[in-house]
Amino acid sequence: MATPVKVYGPPLSTAVSRVLACLFEKNVQFQLIPVNMAKGEHKSPDYLKIQPFGQVPAFQDESINLFESRAICRYVCEKYADQGNKGLYGTNPLVKASIEQWIEAEGQTFSPPSSLLVFQLVFAPQMKIKQDENLIKQNVEKLSKVLDIYEKRLGDSRYLAGDEFTLADLSHLPNSQYLINGTDKGEIFTSRKNVARWWDEISIRESWKKVVEMQNSPPPKSP
Amino acid sequence: MATPVKVYGPPLSTAVSRVLACLFEKNVQFQLIPVNMAKGEHKSPDYLKIQPFGQVPAFQDESINLFESRAICRYVCEKYADQGNKGLYGTNPLVKASIEQWIEAEGQTFSPPSSLLVFQLVFAPQMKIKQDENLIKQNVEKLSKVLDIYEKRLGDSRYLAGDEFTLADLSHLPNSQYLINGTDKGEIFTSRKNVARWWDEISIRESWKKVVEMQNSPPPKSP
Repeated sequence: MATPVKVYGPPLSTAVSRVLACLFEKNVQFQLIPVNMAKGEHKSPDYLKIQPFGQVPAFQDESINLFESRAICRYVCEKYADQGNKGLYGTNPLVKASIEQWIEAEGQTFSPPSSLLVFQLVFAPQMKIKQDENLIKQNVEKLSKVLDIYEKRLGDSRYLAGDEFTLADLSHLPNSQYLINGTDKGEIFTSRKNVARWWDEISIRESWKKVVEMQNSPPPKSP
Repeated sequence: MATPVKVYGPPLSTAVSRVLACLFEKNVQFQLIPVNMAKGEHKSPDYLKIQPFGQVPAFQDESINLFESRAICRYVCEKYADQGNKGLYGTNPLVKASIEQWIEAEGQTFSPPSSLLVFQLVFAPQMKIKQDENLIKQNVEKLSKVLDIYEKRLGDSRYLAGDEFTLADLSHLPNSQYLINGTDKGEIFTSRKNVARWWDEISIRESWKKVVEMQNSPPPKSP
């Protein structure tokens, strides 16, 4: 058995959960290392050595330290190409290019409004931060326009990058999960027929169900 | 001679110029196809067929249409691996992972404040849109904090992903060029010793000088 890779950060973080979903898909053993963000552990000098921006996740595998969830996912797919879901990152250059295109659409176009809404609607109340109603309204509108384009794409194609579930779809799971199941704005997704069908298909994958189970488990006690 | 790839959009667009810099580095012949954004051509039904989000650039090569500048750059590096700058996207998995990490840092952390500043400080005045001084101040602060982390990294490493110029550095050129040479905020970069040294090295590359020359040339007349 190979040494497990290490993932630093709480599964409740959307970026951490993106990496965990990828590790489950690829059947890669991992060790989850708690980072107590409430205590500022993500800004400690030791942590900043492996994640200079002071964000989660950080990732270690043998001699490499990495940050940025989408970069970690790409590395996991390349390094562990021969195990787990072998098509997750494409098996030919044209499919891979389409996957990259939709990972970038997620990072550049879907993520900004959806991450803002996750923060405002889910985390801000938990952190006793006042919600900004204007910002929420603007970003519901932005996300709705983005999902209009997804609706058309998902009418032509079963998954974003083609006929198979890939890293492009996976990358959308964390924010979508919070918005659909943890807020009253889920209808932005579920009111769109093709987006709703796609969400049903990607969210019942075993890999993602395991991540949601981890999110719903009580966090391990700090040593 | 292979058929040139097609790039749709004006070189003055930061995302278009990212792709052009990559094509010059890889010595890939291209045909630039004007998209008159002032006339709304990027929202026309024909254009939306190849770029559903109505943004620039769009890209065509043989049988593939692509959008998202960073995805196009990755495709160009993979497809034309054996020509031009062969190390641009890494020649071994660990370097490639580091490149991906810093491309993501650019897209997720550097780009949001720097793109906002480029819009507010460069494009808004040209478009007679009122500048938002508060937003400018907030994003100067955000970008300064990001560049503090770059300053440290570039003290340890000649380029972002290691000893060689890569797609990770290239990806930073468009926004940096505007902020350093087209606004009074250039000192955010030039006041940081290592960032300034890095900027000097990446901005004098022949590939980038050709892009800046295209940006400074009068646009071709529409037919």
